[in-house]
Amino acid sequence: MIKRVHHIAIAVNNLDEALATYEKFFGFKPSKVKTVAEQKVRAALLPVGDGELEIIQPIDPNSGVAKFLQTRGEGIHHICFEVDDINKELENMASRGVELIDKKGRSGLAGTIGFLSPKSTKGVLIELAQTHEHE
Amino acid sequence: MIKRVHHIAIAVNNLDEALATYEKFFGFKPSKVKTVAEQKVRAALLPVGDGELEIIQPIDPNSGVAKFLQTRGEGIHHICFEVDDINKELENMASRGVELIDKKGRSGLAGTIGFLSPKSTKGVLIELAQTHEHE
Repeated sequence: MIKRVHHIAIAVNNLDEALATYEKFFGFKPSKVKTVAEQKVRAALLPVGDGELEIIQPIDPNSGVAKFLQTRGEGIHHICFEVDDINKELENMASRGVELIDKKGRSGLAGTIGFLSPKSTKGVLIELAQTHEHE
Repeated sequence: MIKRVHHIAIAVNNLDEALATYEKFFGFKPSKVKTVAEQKVRAALLPVGDGELEIIQPIDPNSGVAKFLQTRGEGIHHICFEVDDINKELENMASRGVELIDKKGRSGLAGTIGFLSPKSTKGVLIELAQTHEHE
């Protein structure tokens, strides 16, 4: 079951510049800034209401995010929905006919995460995340 | 002041097909389906947690959303932040150097709304909305 929108991710060329822009214009301040080596990004989480924006900068020119920037330029990259049980939800999605990028949960900035293919979801890259906030 | 993410908008070629897909895969059901003539779209709101997805289909081939679909294909179109006072926030944004698409609030699906130029916000099309829920 999907509980809420956990975050909306924005791909940028320069994280520090983007953080300065979003603070100047909207007053958003990062709660966390971290390099996520597995996803080949440097990322920041900005709380907005009870959700978050995630701003991501690729640290490897061969990463998915770097390719997105080369093709489409800076902009919204994906939406993340929070779920209770990541592996159960990925199984549910597969059984409903969703094409998966990740068949099992793996470690990410938001917790244990898995991506669905945008081919199944009208061009929208969707991440599911089981957070570790309550553990 | 920005209160929360009000919705995330997804541009699609066929709204009914997209609604069927999002209900089948995620269990999301529309709370509202409406033609917004001023924005040249047919749109649906799908509650997710305390926010919403807005799915929009252009009804005019010369609309901004139709051009987005021609150029980029289906996908995430914009993020909407809820504000208390739309005209005050648009003025604040302009004074901080944000390029505005709408200088004053106008009627939209989410309430009285105004768009900021993605040129100012790292490629992200941002809508501000003053909702009418508490009036």
